[in-house]
Amino acid sequence: MTAIGPPTRSLGAQFEHLATLNDDPAGGGITREVFTPTYAVANEFVAGLMRAGGLDVRVDAFGNLRGRLEGQDPSAPAVLTGSHIDTTLNAGAYDGVLGVLGAIEAIRAVRETGWEPIRTVEVICFAGEEPRFGSGCLGSRALTGSLTRAELDSMVDRDGISVAEAMRAVDLDPDRIEEARLDFAAVHAFVELHIEQAGVLEAAGIPIGAVTHIAAPHDLLVRVTGVAAHAGATPMALRRDAFAGAVEAVAELERLARESPSGRTVATVGIVHVAPGAINVIPGEVELHVDVRDHDSTARTAVIDGFLSALESICARRELGTAVETITFDEPAVCSPIVVDAVRGACAGLEQPYLDVISGAYHDAMVLGAKVPMGMIFVPSVGGISHSPLEFTSEEDIDCGVRVLAETLKLLAGTN
Amino acid sequence: MTAIGPPTRSLGAQFEHLATLNDDPAGGGITREVFTPTYAVANEFVAGLMRAGGLDVRVDAFGNLRGRLEGQDPSAPAVLTGSHIDTTLNAGAYDGVLGVLGAIEAIRAVRETGWEPIRTVEVICFAGEEPRFGSGCLGSRALTGSLTRAELDSMVDRDGISVAEAMRAVDLDPDRIEEARLDFAAVHAFVELHIEQAGVLEAAGIPIGAVTHIAAPHDLLVRVTGVAAHAGATPMALRRDAFAGAVEAVAELERLARESPSGRTVATVGIVHVAPGAINVIPGEVELHVDVRDHDSTARTAVIDGFLSALESICARRELGTAVETITFDEPAVCSPIVVDAVRGACAGLEQPYLDVISGAYHDAMVLGAKVPMGMIFVPSVGGISHSPLEFTSEEDIDCGVRVLAETLKLLAGTN
Repeated sequence: MTAIGPPTRSLGAQFEHLATLNDDPAGGGITREVFTPTYAVANEFVAGLMRAGGLDVRVDAFGNLRGRLEGQDPSAPAVLTGSHIDTTLNAGAYDGVLGVLGAIEAIRAVRETGWEPIRTVEVICFAGEEPRFGSGCLGSRALTGSLTRAELDSMVDRDGISVAEAMRAVDLDPDRIEEARLDFAAVHAFVELHIEQAGVLEAAGIPIGAVTHIAAPHDLLVRVTGVAAHAGATPMALRRDAFAGAVEAVAELERLARESPSGRTVATVGIVHVAPGAINVIPGEVELHVDVRDHDSTARTAVIDGFLSALESICARRELGTAVETITFDEPAVCSPIVVDAVRGACAGLEQPYLDVISGAYHDAMVLGAKVPMGMIFVPSVGGISHSPLEFTSEEDIDCGVRVLAETLKLLAGTN
Repeated sequence: MTAIGPPTRSLGAQFEHLATLNDDPAGGGITREVFTPTYAVANEFVAGLMRAGGLDVRVDAFGNLRGRLEGQDPSAPAVLTGSHIDTTLNAGAYDGVLGVLGAIEAIRAVRETGWEPIRTVEVICFAGEEPRFGSGCLGSRALTGSLTRAELDSMVDRDGISVAEAMRAVDLDPDRIEEARLDFAAVHAFVELHIEQAGVLEAAGIPIGAVTHIAAPHDLLVRVTGVAAHAGATPMALRRDAFAGAVEAVAELERLARESPSGRTVATVGIVHVAPGAINVIPGEVELHVDVRDHDSTARTAVIDGFLSALESICARRELGTAVETITFDEPAVCSPIVVDAVRGACAGLEQPYLDVISGAYHDAMVLGAKVPMGMIFVPSVGGISHSPLEFTSEEDIDCGVRVLAETLKLLAGTN
């Protein structure tokens, strides 16, 4: 087994280096989407850190990078940890990255103290957590078997490139996706360290969140069809303006989310296409990507149903056509007591205050939670900002999160 | 002088041929923007028709194609007619094209009967009536001197290409734009034959409109700035969603236009950009292109002012930034009695019923109207549809419009 020494770069320097692997520096943030050449370079950097930390490295059939530390009892179900290093567009340096770099560092640090786990511990750097192809968590879906071979052809990115095409471009064989599936019986638990991406911990002044629930998205692709016509010559009463109809429906969506029975539903329209897209032409077609989330699926369903019914009546009144397609439908997840108790126990051992929190964002942990016991550890996001160049978590909070993850892994994987 | 015989192609065949000169046939409509290679081919086709019709052809310093028939009194102020052959995106085959092909055919047809005009008659095929560069009527603005050299650099198309760059690509020298300016004293009148692009004539069952007023656009570029943040983790109450703010303002714009004091204001948001444009990111920035038109400038101002004040208060309440820029500001035009009476007189001579109408769309005639006596002749648009692949005017109505234009030109240019 490799000798464990200090890392060649500090954790902060590792974040800084990954941030330079960026396909759109002009935006001020980081764009590093899965299965791009830049992503491959980033993955190789992480693989190097895994090897330096004494982990056995392999890439699975979907491109998830996995670093394994064999336990003293190789037959005992393993403890998994990790997150992702792909980003959304013009994003921050911490989302996902913390859970990968932090896990490698946590294992390195506790092994330096002489720890040898009873259970095998594996760090997973999940491929495609962010929705380059319209829907996220592809790597964890491959592990749970909920990503099908057919979806690899049907899901496409903004440029029309399918997952399968993107995989082939980085020498992955989409036909072998089944081989990435986990043996669930061989997994004891999964724990993911992540930035909060919200302002609850910061407001409370507490650096650790023990996640109890993960909200899940129900995402829709909504098309509204009207009649493209002359913007000057067509009286208001005679227009069938697809954008005016979409606007009315989106205003209603916002109202429904604000008044949601759970008080925690969020609704976002993040992608909008208006065609033909000329200043003197009434829009004939609008495409909206709608994202609705809650940890309470009843409340989420109420908002979705209210929106669909408003959309239908708005389009009927305005003589517009409409078509709605579900892009993503995930069940909200409840974290496993095995993991939540380990996180709480780790905090108790470290005399570290923590707060029970709900994750508004989804994570690979949510997907894995359908099959194996799962939980998460949150650290504060300054200003609650994420998916933005302004995303930031202090070095002190990062160190705190890594220490809690290390103790959690010790509790989950066992110590002699 | 060239002998005048029957045209080598029927007017219908000329429309069909121009429709094949199309940069985006996949959309079902016609895309032929000014200063493109396809536009150059179309211009060359029109120049050939002009020559075949016995007109002296030249291209002016802005790229307007001009075909001249010298009158018996070359010192008398001339009669101008014409329109444009550039299109907006995925557009129809008649908008603009009718006023160019119809003018050449009208002159050919009356000359066949032995007519020799007293005044010089000139057909102008205006460059850039449609807003490839954000604002339209560039060719007629060059003629009236209201298009400046500086604007040729500052106005850019969707790909960031400036007017000056686009001109150079077709061998025009932007530094010579002043040379395109008309000698207004040498112009007696301008008359433009055009499709109505509205449903008034069709509803009345009358094939000719004598235009009395032309509505004009006040166009705004509106930017709304919020904070891009995680779509799942950011509660509704804490978001600064630029698209949600834009939606509220656009709904208000529609209401204001519908309730406008003139009863004829129209408002359109035809171009919408939402950034960063990911399903899991709250929009941080939205750009809207807003077009408001009326022939009554007081009513138009009331709608614009109401919208700007709503935008300001919406953005203040939502803690969003906003910046507004006027892209186009044209004064509505009143048609000259010289031309309106000639159109009415032509109809009377032909025993052709007509209707006095207002143009909701702007035209090169509107721009020229600031400097020379101007009027227009409308023929019906089926279903009132224009700027769409569905745009259509019957051959019968086209022939009727060409006959009325021919008689109008005879009245304006004089007959021995």
